[in-house]
Amino acid sequence: MAIIDRSPSEIVALGEALQRITATDVLALTPQPSFDESTRDGYVFRVIDGSGERVSKYRIVDEIPAGKPSRTILEPGTACRIMTGGCVPEGGERVVPYENCAEGDGVVSITDNSLQVGATFIRKTGSEIAQGERLLGCGVQLEGAHLGLLASCGVHDVSVFVRPSVGYVCTGSELTAATEVLELGQKVSSNSFLLEGLLASVGARPANLGVIKDSEHELLALFAKVVADELDVLITTGGMGPGKYDLVETAFVEAGGKIVFNAISMRPGKSFLFGTLGRTLFFGLPGPPHAVRTLLNTLVGQALLAMQGLKGSWPKRVQVHLQHEIRVKRNDVLRLKDGVLTMDEGRCSVRLAGGLEVGNCFVLLPPGQSHYREAELVEVHLAIDLGAGW
Amino acid sequence: MAIIDRSPSEIVALGEALQRITATDVLALTPQPSFDESTRDGYVFRVIDGSGERVSKYRIVDEIPAGKPSRTILEPGTACRIMTGGCVPEGGERVVPYENCAEGDGVVSITDNSLQVGATFIRKTGSEIAQGERLLGCGVQLEGAHLGLLASCGVHDVSVFVRPSVGYVCTGSELTAATEVLELGQKVSSNSFLLEGLLASVGARPANLGVIKDSEHELLALFAKVVADELDVLITTGGMGPGKYDLVETAFVEAGGKIVFNAISMRPGKSFLFGTLGRTLFFGLPGPPHAVRTLLNTLVGQALLAMQGLKGSWPKRVQVHLQHEIRVKRNDVLRLKDGVLTMDEGRCSVRLAGGLEVGNCFVLLPPGQSHYREAELVEVHLAIDLGAGW
Repeated sequence: MAIIDRSPSEIVALGEALQRITATDVLALTPQPSFDESTRDGYVFRVIDGSGERVSKYRIVDEIPAGKPSRTILEPGTACRIMTGGCVPEGGERVVPYENCAEGDGVVSITDNSLQVGATFIRKTGSEIAQGERLLGCGVQLEGAHLGLLASCGVHDVSVFVRPSVGYVCTGSELTAATEVLELGQKVSSNSFLLEGLLASVGARPANLGVIKDSEHELLALFAKVVADELDVLITTGGMGPGKYDLVETAFVEAGGKIVFNAISMRPGKSFLFGTLGRTLFFGLPGPPHAVRTLLNTLVGQALLAMQGLKGSWPKRVQVHLQHEIRVKRNDVLRLKDGVLTMDEGRCSVRLAGGLEVGNCFVLLPPGQSHYREAELVEVHLAIDLGAGW
Repeated sequence: MAIIDRSPSEIVALGEALQRITATDVLALTPQPSFDESTRDGYVFRVIDGSGERVSKYRIVDEIPAGKPSRTILEPGTACRIMTGGCVPEGGERVVPYENCAEGDGVVSITDNSLQVGATFIRKTGSEIAQGERLLGCGVQLEGAHLGLLASCGVHDVSVFVRPSVGYVCTGSELTAATEVLELGQKVSSNSFLLEGLLASVGARPANLGVIKDSEHELLALFAKVVADELDVLITTGGMGPGKYDLVETAFVEAGGKIVFNAISMRPGKSFLFGTLGRTLFFGLPGPPHAVRTLLNTLVGQALLAMQGLKGSWPKRVQVHLQHEIRVKRNDVLRLKDGVLTMDEGRCSVRLAGGLEVGNCFVLLPPGQSHYREAELVEVHLAIDLGAGW
């Protein structure tokens, strides 16, 4: 059994499906267009009369706006006024745009050789999308444009993977919720804001389970609650070091948790626990926000998107040019650094983010290499929380 | 007076500020760290005794976990156990990690020359961020990482621009809401799904005002309601052609609307109205979903983001290489085509999106040029609704 199971699927109405990920192929229930449709304002003609001759003047027998199909059956030598989007009546063979026609006394004549041109200005039923045609594959994240496409093909609801429920807890006796007054030695549990945003970016249903102290008792109570609530995923920050108050791993094992791994050869990642507790996946992250963001983007987000069945792999990995040289003091393991990716003149390049800047990607500096030249290609992981302003 | 005014600002709690855009610079209210903080589990020492001599054994007088500052004043020759994140007590000069110390009988001695190394393992108050330092500029869209940074510096709420209220209406007598049974000649008003998603992507507060018929009466009622409700923006789709049932422009003027322009030399864009109605901005879009998405991305989204004060210009414009040649039949005006942008080996390139594919950018094909070579640089606008799967 895989450790990370695919979420079950559920059926949701299109209006609730934005950003959700499809759990099946989605097929057109109606063809597109669903009727023979005029693509111009003009006249629709029964061109050929009974004897096979073209006629030059046509008696107007009806007017067909969009949305109001006519019961008229066009006989030879008759025409209807028709609007863009109007339903071509039985017997209608072609539409001629009104600018190429002249109307008077209930009769329309065609002023040029419009009957000879190839275009009929009629979109035939199913000419764009056939009934039963595959509109979307499985594993596609639904944007507004996808939903519009589905709606136009008669699809009212869609099967999507259930969004995993993800509880998060900041651990640390020094932490307080943001609204409280900070006393000496205390810190705001700022990771809760970071996690709330990141988890929303990957489609999870985040639940802030608050702040707990470095206390085995409190940690055990947390783990018991998570099992009882059947959370899909639990994330903690802090308490992952080697110190005597770093109790997350001990308490996790005490609570019956099974460790899959408790460190990865990556920085950040030295303090990183992944395990299972009943049916709940557990990610123990270190405390520093930079490490939380990096590990969420690189590892936890990947797991959450995999649970939701997103096709393709996350994070997106791309090779880009370095904008400046980098020298690395310690090159014992893979290091991930905040980066700022830009595109210019057909070239993608990256620089390391400075100071307080929030990057839009993470630059991978593999072990064994200490010097990276300007313009050298490096791999980056795109940040999952890229906003409109990147 | 500019036609597009900046939205007013409002103060929101950090927990409500995700994706909002800052209306002022944001300054650190507390320094970071806010106290002298140990960066290791170990011992904190008063190294120099009264005579200026270093001593080799130190009496342990307290233990300082994170979050529990000690009232102890370290005298010469004394030390405290201290944990990572612990508050350095008065008199503490440096921390030595526990692995470089030996403790026994209430006394700790240092096992190597740790007192000589430069690192004190103490993060001094304000060494990362000074009180009053600028954390963010005006016009930044707030991601989780920004909110975490603000929280860690004592900021509890933030001034952001008000999200514009944007009503949207699909016009067309042939349109029905998605849940109804489609009769001959009718179509689902699929643009409502498209608009809902796109408007959310640009931070607007979308309000679905439903579907209305091609009726001057219904349009006038809509415009009157919009003025009464003081919507910031109204968007309609459809009813923008030259036909006798294309009544949007007529009704808009009749309702007192002022046209700023009613066509742009761009495809799509031939049918595109921008005007003002009281304090409401009005965008009349054509009916085809492709045109709606393109014009929203290129023009309407820009206006909505400008109202919210996003720094920089939207859509992001980048020069990228064509993956294949393009021949254009009609090159009379600028054309925007759905494109799929990829990054590979330091190179950004684009191809035209095919069939039902939803692109992640729009390729600009300027007037006057009929042939674009493979690998030629073209300009693209990034799509605002880029999801995790792009």
